[in-house]
Amino acid sequence: MYRNRTNGELRLEHVNQEVTLAGWVQKSRDKGFMIWVDLRDRYGVTQLIFDEERTDKEVFELARTLGREFVIQVKGKVIEREAKNKNIPTGEIEILVKELKVLNKAQLPPFTIEDETDGGDELRMKYRYLDIRRTPVRNNLIFRAKVNMEVRKYLSDQGFIDVETPYLIKSTPEGARDFVVPSRMNAGQFYALPQSPQTFKQLLMVGGLDKYYQIVKCFRDEDLRADRQPEFTQIDCEMAFVEQEDILDVFEGLTRHLLKEINGVEISKFPRMSYEDAMKTYGNDKPDIRFDMKFGELNDLAQNKGFQVFDQQELVVGISVPACAGYSRKEIDALIDFVKKPQIGANGLVWVKYSEDGTLKSSVDKFFSEEDLGLWAERLRTNPGDLMLVMAGGTDKTRSQLSTLRMHMAEKLGLRKKNEFAPLWVVDFPLLEWDEETNRFHAMHHPFTSPKPEDLHLLEATPGKVRANAYDLVLNGNEIGGGSIRIHDKATQKRMFQLLGFTDEQAQDQFGFLMDAFQFGAPPHGGIAFGLDRLVSILGGQETIRDFIAFPKNNAGRDVMIDAPSVIDQEQLNELSLKVEIK
Amino acid sequence: MYRNRTNGELRLEHVNQEVTLAGWVQKSRDKGFMIWVDLRDRYGVTQLIFDEERTDKEVFELARTLGREFVIQVKGKVIEREAKNKNIPTGEIEILVKELKVLNKAQLPPFTIEDETDGGDELRMKYRYLDIRRTPVRNNLIFRAKVNMEVRKYLSDQGFIDVETPYLIKSTPEGARDFVVPSRMNAGQFYALPQSPQTFKQLLMVGGLDKYYQIVKCFRDEDLRADRQPEFTQIDCEMAFVEQEDILDVFEGLTRHLLKEINGVEISKFPRMSYEDAMKTYGNDKPDIRFDMKFGELNDLAQNKGFQVFDQQELVVGISVPACAGYSRKEIDALIDFVKKPQIGANGLVWVKYSEDGTLKSSVDKFFSEEDLGLWAERLRTNPGDLMLVMAGGTDKTRSQLSTLRMHMAEKLGLRKKNEFAPLWVVDFPLLEWDEETNRFHAMHHPFTSPKPEDLHLLEATPGKVRANAYDLVLNGNEIGGGSIRIHDKATQKRMFQLLGFTDEQAQDQFGFLMDAFQFGAPPHGGIAFGLDRLVSILGGQETIRDFIAFPKNNAGRDVMIDAPSVIDQEQLNELSLKVEIK
Repeated sequence: MYRNRTNGELRLEHVNQEVTLAGWVQKSRDKGFMIWVDLRDRYGVTQLIFDEERTDKEVFELARTLGREFVIQVKGKVIEREAKNKNIPTGEIEILVKELKVLNKAQLPPFTIEDETDGGDELRMKYRYLDIRRTPVRNNLIFRAKVNMEVRKYLSDQGFIDVETPYLIKSTPEGARDFVVPSRMNAGQFYALPQSPQTFKQLLMVGGLDKYYQIVKCFRDEDLRADRQPEFTQIDCEMAFVEQEDILDVFEGLTRHLLKEINGVEISKFPRMSYEDAMKTYGNDKPDIRFDMKFGELNDLAQNKGFQVFDQQELVVGISVPACAGYSRKEIDALIDFVKKPQIGANGLVWVKYSEDGTLKSSVDKFFSEEDLGLWAERLRTNPGDLMLVMAGGTDKTRSQLSTLRMHMAEKLGLRKKNEFAPLWVVDFPLLEWDEETNRFHAMHHPFTSPKPEDLHLLEATPGKVRANAYDLVLNGNEIGGGSIRIHDKATQKRMFQLLGFTDEQAQDQFGFLMDAFQFGAPPHGGIAFGLDRLVSILGGQETIRDFIAFPKNNAGRDVMIDAPSVIDQEQLNELSLKVEIK
Repeated sequence: MYRNRTNGELRLEHVNQEVTLAGWVQKSRDKGFMIWVDLRDRYGVTQLIFDEERTDKEVFELARTLGREFVIQVKGKVIEREAKNKNIPTGEIEILVKELKVLNKAQLPPFTIEDETDGGDELRMKYRYLDIRRTPVRNNLIFRAKVNMEVRKYLSDQGFIDVETPYLIKSTPEGARDFVVPSRMNAGQFYALPQSPQTFKQLLMVGGLDKYYQIVKCFRDEDLRADRQPEFTQIDCEMAFVEQEDILDVFEGLTRHLLKEINGVEISKFPRMSYEDAMKTYGNDKPDIRFDMKFGELNDLAQNKGFQVFDQQELVVGISVPACAGYSRKEIDALIDFVKKPQIGANGLVWVKYSEDGTLKSSVDKFFSEEDLGLWAERLRTNPGDLMLVMAGGTDKTRSQLSTLRMHMAEKLGLRKKNEFAPLWVVDFPLLEWDEETNRFHAMHHPFTSPKPEDLHLLEATPGKVRANAYDLVLNGNEIGGGSIRIHDKATQKRMFQLLGFTDEQAQDQFGFLMDAFQFGAPPHGGIAFGLDRLVSILGGQETIRDFIAFPKNNAGRDVMIDAPSVIDQEQLNELSLKVEIK
């Protein structure tokens, strides 16, 4: 037995007990006649004391050799501290050490193992096992496990069955790019790793399982953007005999449960917003509604007043930024530079300061009277002291640009409070979206999403106008979950594949098993999937998913700790009937 | 809302309530003036009644068209049945249907959806979604989910943290063959799918996480034997600052918890047996101890009595089969044929019948007196009425053959009772085993297993004699879990790789990250992994893991339902810098 207590549990009540502890040397202070060592483990830090008078000479000398991150075991007596430390739970006691054993020495770590570290990102990733020793990182992993377990408890209590679906499945070109796995036993053939267990969970509904869930790894071979991982975790759910309302109800319940159990926040009914309204009001289908700054469209007020920059545009739209009328020229210029950045790509920004004294001053005073600007202020619900920011251009682009600016202002003003939670259902998504590049429709959610029955008549003539029974759950400006009611009859599914540009042969070849299944008594069904990495990071008050993944990959998809991917033996390639050909 | 009740919950107390139900037509009986339909869902079966007098004509006619597996929704009143069915929980009531809606028609399924089906294995796999509709299959999946959740509850209550380790890792040639995943972004390089999260969980211990668990898919590209899957699920655990005793204690606790919660069986202390004793007593390192028939070695009693077949052999060993002294010549011949089968490969079998009247008769009466045979009986603890079966040959081979015969006899005699559970720890495994084929040592458990300190002095001269801190948990003749205390210092790990035939460069290239980690303060640690598929099937009183996997693959590693693996597009291959070359 290496220990009978952990380093987080000893208190005044344990004084005089003999204990055995083990852990890492966090730091030591050698005062000559006395040595203090902070001993750390997952559970906390306990102070050890070695005393020239009271400690055996050999033990005392050994204590003098202890370096940072040495792994040691000690036996000793719990005593009351003279100088108490109120900052840690064990701060009232210390251990007068009688026996000391070095279990493992340690080289000096490449960065300090403390809450704030001096290690850069790459270094911490290479030595991730040392990074995990740092309390904030370890706490993130513990937090993730807690969320995971609460999800399971809730869903399991609701009668959901955790079913494992296969990881070695079939490659299909719809959606993102698959990771593939060559099959040795079937030369020239490949499995694919699942982008999601979508078809399997639908088949489980056809199979009568009624309520399914799984917390499952999914894989997408995408060019990695910041904070995307090639492998990610989904809370994947499906229910049979349900309509959209049933699903929203259950998963609003799940989210409410998590907010309560994990964050201690009680939220009653989640608001809902149509996709169309979200785009109109926030320029975004995942609006952060913790703060206001709603869009106001100004076409009727701002066009045909002689300002050509507005006149020729599809949309003139603005927001009102609270209490920023006092912005200096320099601050305004910074905002203009911000929207002109290539990633945002706006041509400029019109500003109107609504002073506390009621006067209005703008960058377009030449074209608009104070009365004009007063009408803008009314539309944008601007109060004295606020700053209006107005953009113009093509509708989609301008909304997106203003949305980015809105989020930027919210960050600046500290409106994105990490302990405040504002969930929102966004509903009535379009079924299809036109892709200019491939010149065809893509499924906005996925090809298995059902059109709204009331929009079915539009499917032939104007498929772009058909809305889907699809919904996203948005939390603090992030999409944390999304799902849909599925198609459950072969004819509709076949038609859907046609709309997406599949030949009937392709559809049958790739998804024949699913369409066949629909002919043997498929119940109405639907589901949702949450991105666990994202959900956990938001509940944890952070926005970087990598901080909540034990061993993340970098932006090139590499694990720099184990150095993967890597070349493999020629023999392995031969067995797989493969040859590498780098062009 | 498709339903306000499920098909398993209505009882007499609900009589006169109006309900809405949905589900599948299990069967219907049309008596002309009355139609009964059994409506099925996950929760049970409810009888519907359509009555010429009380049911609307249109509804009645529609009911007449219902075929097996149609998906329907009905509204009606709960009424008391005249002829009650005591066999099902809803057997006292039925639903007098007022409204009927066909939600989806169904083609005739390719096999009957009943507890006993007429579908063969291949057909059921191809239409696995229909197979899952059958109660026994569905119940297996629900059972698995229950075991999964109980494991989580227990481990989480014990302070274990569920951490997800990566699926896209690095290929290493030690152990079984890896499945590999070509990396598009790193041309010519490959990830591997994990055979287990072994090194990652050890790094989590180095990282101070203290107690880790994960229920995780693992992958092995092996030539599939019966009842092996290329992807399988492990309950994977690791603890820091532990000795073997601590681990056995915690996981004996887990197994006891499962047996109690899942099977209602209480077992106190699990017996332990050394690997050496297990091999000597049962010819097997995973003995089924639900029944006796222990091996008795007879060299001293049976050799040098003129029976040459025994004299030249390394080992003469027998078992005593209870109450089989009355076996006919034909029955005995069948046993001899059994052990001579190529898979077993014995040359023959000596039998001795110990009659109820105390006389002894054998196939070797020419060479052995009744007194000789009496001594055998004593050694084998044979009682009057029992049958002794004796084999001879090389030690390892003969033990293995007799072990197979012992299990065969137990099956025949019904001694492998599925509701009886006999767990057993097998400990003190050898560290290494010699592999004739490659002419080198292999790690019996894996290269990270630590030698027993007291055997360390044997490591240089007679490495084959070194025992490991390794242990298996055996349940009813199946290994359900195995683990070890790990090496946690670089020098020992390096030496281990040398013993396994690695050059220092190979070891550093493949496991350098782990050996480096050991230099930064690695705590003593160890762990265990359970095979969930196997564990679940044994707790479920069955031995075929495939019956507890939602979508299993066949023995050629194919998913016959979705038809995977399959060929992929040339474009995909190009992107991966790969060319298929089938020789």
